[in-house]
Amino acid sequence: MVGAGVPLVAVDDGPWLARALGHVDEILVDHAHCEKKAASSAVGLLFKYADRGELLAPLARLAREELVHFEEVLVALRARGVELRHLTPSPYASRLLAGARAHEPDRLLDTLCCLALIEARSAARMALLADALPDATLARLYARLVASERRHEAAYVGLASAVAPAPTVAARLAALAAHEACVLAAVPPIARLHA
Amino acid sequence: MVGAGVPLVAVDDGPWLARALGHVDEILVDHAHCEKKAASSAVGLLFKYADRGELLAPLARLAREELVHFEEVLVALRARGVELRHLTPSPYASRLLAGARAHEPDRLLDTLCCLALIEARSAARMALLADALPDATLARLYARLVASERRHEAAYVGLASAVAPAPTVAARLAALAAHEACVLAAVPPIARLHA
Repeated sequence: MVGAGVPLVAVDDGPWLARALGHVDEILVDHAHCEKKAASSAVGLLFKYADRGELLAPLARLAREELVHFEEVLVALRARGVELRHLTPSPYASRLLAGARAHEPDRLLDTLCCLALIEARSAARMALLADALPDATLARLYARLVASERRHEAAYVGLASAVAPAPTVAARLAALAAHEACVLAAVPPIARLHA
Repeated sequence: MVGAGVPLVAVDDGPWLARALGHVDEILVDHAHCEKKAASSAVGLLFKYADRGELLAPLARLAREELVHFEEVLVALRARGVELRHLTPSPYASRLLAGARAHEPDRLLDTLCCLALIEARSAARMALLADALPDATLARLYARLVASERRHEAAYVGLASAVAPAPTVAARLAALAAHEACVLAAVPPIARLHA
């Protein structure tokens, strides 16, 4: 199971999709901030775990790809004449990551599992956007990004598997997937990728 | 002058080069940390100046290129059987950036000028390494990186010119170049890229 991705809990995405389609510009602005934050998280791990040689090159590549996505969303925003403005973020990511255990090496493992779950949820949400967006250019962007988010999900699971045995990774992914579903159900219903 | 690069003050690099050639592994480890820090600085500016639309895509590209360099230095370290370990950094960058004025928009302009100066000093030092290193593979890496650092220097000057008139940029570059030379002269003589 671990090799095949994370055990993401299925949720009713209907209300989310209706909100997203009603606020496409806001979703795009939030998405740009999310890609920037994803790059920043990967770069932050390069500092925090500088002595974990096996993680560094993969994390640097992940950060670069998140930055490419950030740039792609900036292009999409510009095409719609929308400025990147400040948006109050969904508390989803910070609440999810608050479920990571405090002490190392548990904290590293849990952080990597949480990041895999964020990528998996992003992929699920972007797949819905790819199918439902009336703007064909934007729909194609999201279809491409779904594939990237799934690769990132697998990359984070791979990194987790580099720092802990497979049964431990599977157990933490299952526990944190349950936590993720609870976090997602409890965040305010605003127009955000993870809300 | 601004278009042609920064007015870097010439210093006697002889003692630095002798130290660097005597501690190549330490220089490489420091260099890896410097590239990571450069990426982190650019990503940090994406957050701090999120409302400066004209800066965002260029900063994201700069961050991606610094990450590629980080990955290249990791490969060079691995080829020499050297682990990326913690090193006390040279106080150069933090002391240089402490010369930025406190209030916006001066702070942004000065930060961009300081980052241009760091890239210029890196290019000068790497050019010396490219000429002097006996390891041909490493010498070629540094020769390639010199060209990248010079492009980054020009990119930061370009960003500075996007936020202030050309005469203001030229004046701040000149003032901060004098500050940079004083900072460089005062840092401890250890085996670091900027020491």
